[in-house]
Amino acid sequence: MVWLGRILAGACPERLVGAGRPAPLTDAQVPTRTGMSELRYHELRGEQVVYAIDRQERTFLPAAEHCPLCPTRPGGEPTEIPAPAFEIAVFENRFPAFASPHGAAEVVVYTDSHTGSLGTLTHERAQALMWVWRHRYAELGARADVEYVFIFENRGVEVGVTLHHPHGQIYAYPFLPPVPAAELAADARLGGCAVCELSARELSDGRRVVYENKHVVVHVPYAARWAYEAHVVMRAHRTDLLECEPAELDALAAGLQALVRGYDALFDRVFPYVMAVHQAPTGGAGRGRGHVHVEFYPPLRTAEKLKYLAGSEQGAGTFISDTLPEESALALRAAIGDAT
Amino acid sequence: MVWLGRILAGACPERLVGAGRPAPLTDAQVPTRTGMSELRYHELRGEQVVYAIDRQERTFLPAAEHCPLCPTRPGGEPTEIPAPAFEIAVFENRFPAFASPHGAAEVVVYTDSHTGSLGTLTHERAQALMWVWRHRYAELGARADVEYVFIFENRGVEVGVTLHHPHGQIYAYPFLPPVPAAELAADARLGGCAVCELSARELSDGRRVVYENKHVVVHVPYAARWAYEAHVVMRAHRTDLLECEPAELDALAAGLQALVRGYDALFDRVFPYVMAVHQAPTGGAGRGRGHVHVEFYPPLRTAEKLKYLAGSEQGAGTFISDTLPEESALALRAAIGDAT
Repeated sequence: MVWLGRILAGACPERLVGAGRPAPLTDAQVPTRTGMSELRYHELRGEQVVYAIDRQERTFLPAAEHCPLCPTRPGGEPTEIPAPAFEIAVFENRFPAFASPHGAAEVVVYTDSHTGSLGTLTHERAQALMWVWRHRYAELGARADVEYVFIFENRGVEVGVTLHHPHGQIYAYPFLPPVPAAELAADARLGGCAVCELSARELSDGRRVVYENKHVVVHVPYAARWAYEAHVVMRAHRTDLLECEPAELDALAAGLQALVRGYDALFDRVFPYVMAVHQAPTGGAGRGRGHVHVEFYPPLRTAEKLKYLAGSEQGAGTFISDTLPEESALALRAAIGDAT
Repeated sequence: MVWLGRILAGACPERLVGAGRPAPLTDAQVPTRTGMSELRYHELRGEQVVYAIDRQERTFLPAAEHCPLCPTRPGGEPTEIPAPAFEIAVFENRFPAFASPHGAAEVVVYTDSHTGSLGTLTHERAQALMWVWRHRYAELGARADVEYVFIFENRGVEVGVTLHHPHGQIYAYPFLPPVPAAELAADARLGGCAVCELSARELSDGRRVVYENKHVVVHVPYAARWAYEAHVVMRAHRTDLLECEPAELDALAAGLQALVRGYDALFDRVFPYVMAVHQAPTGGAGRGRGHVHVEFYPPLRTAEKLKYLAGSEQGAGTFISDTLPEESALALRAAIGDAT
């Protein structure tokens, strides 16, 4: 099934749902999915592992003219998106880690232009993306088989990206994964919302804050695991995007774009990262608990040097960093200033 | 301080300690360590992060004639090892993640030959390496500032290796890191030794067992996170290397070498991996609990394709694998058979 969001800036959720949604494809139009997905519990680590068996055949860095995320041009080869133009498109991943009715995997295409990034979208398009995220969180989160909706973006070959067209992804897990589970445990440990508490500490200290607007604060965490790790946090306590006011969604888009533009300015190169949107679980015991924020994990330590996850990170679970968060915040704050 | 182990095969610990240990270097001979190390607690993840600030200057893939792990040849430039020949050498890391009295970081050089690997060592040398590991575990673990002694090896540029000379490392953490903590939690959850229980399950199932000898079993775990993940497990319940009989240490060396040779045979190329030796913590509440085993995390999915830790792994904490453990075990068992 392909779902196209023809999004208007500032559209309310009611206008978003259904707006531009085309008729479902016929069976002949739906790409064959031969994959299977299997969950196994890794006892020693205490975590689920997902086996998505047909993913070895994923499309790998195709030439621009064969990009499956570009629109289907009249007379051209069909892509994943059967329309000659679009604003934002969401469709089920052909190579899914999860498949209904045990979770879901979707692709979110930010633009029908083959080049660009979250940072180079117009602000109106970035705002619309927040509404698309909100819509998918609501729709996937409402499903009985989904406990956690995870919106993310992998950017750059350094984190294994196989398609350069600007896009993100959404996984809807049928269980609560370890990282959001750890965040809920932090709430319990700190006796309240950990994200609120840590954001207040960062604002009070100030040395690691790299961007602020009316509703959003961006900081390098006190205990950053990656040299240029940054967290984009709603000032008000909002468990998820559905709780955010329209002005807060606009401010979130502005904060994300300022950070990504700053990243690209930092070393004057495309800055690879993993972007992770953390919100409240939509099922299970953690349902409705959390504080929406967006974490960025960039692998670069310098313009050329990558951080590898090796013995200590993989075998012990402890990150070794060679960069103090205060120093990277200083550089990142300047880069964000230069880029705006 | 440089410590040289001139190890004899089958040497008992008493012979090992002190054997070939040279006089401590004079101050002028000790490389200057300008680094600092700082621990910070990452509240949202619930884990320590280590800042080792001078590591950006680490030696990066030097030409063979400038290898700091080769012996210091008469008339040649001084290396880390001030001897013209050695068998196994252990010394403090010049770019330490941890520095006394808050942990330690050591380098274990397997041979004075610049080329080779754990797999290509003579069996006698590999046996001796087990005694060196045991010695370092005992000596570092006896320190009051050390809670966990972690012996590991990063192999291949794919996991960020900066020196090709065959070597491993040891970190002595002043706290219990998350992965061994998770293993102790698994013991509690399974109501006994999790490693014993999982190894028994693998032996009973049989499909994922890739190597056996009298004292050691190697299997691909039922819920492997990496395509060719493998665990080398002592059959008997031994919390650490100090509890192992000499014959068990010999069998461990044989199992490790069989696996590494099989890895290299699998795709007929040098097979990158992270090797992690898990033993009982040496301090804190977990002291003396655990079951010594060695885990291998290889990043290759195929001869050319790497597994990247991206959105799901980093942002949610859930591994997505495209390879079933039974299938990789089949291939790996055949490769180990071919290589012996």
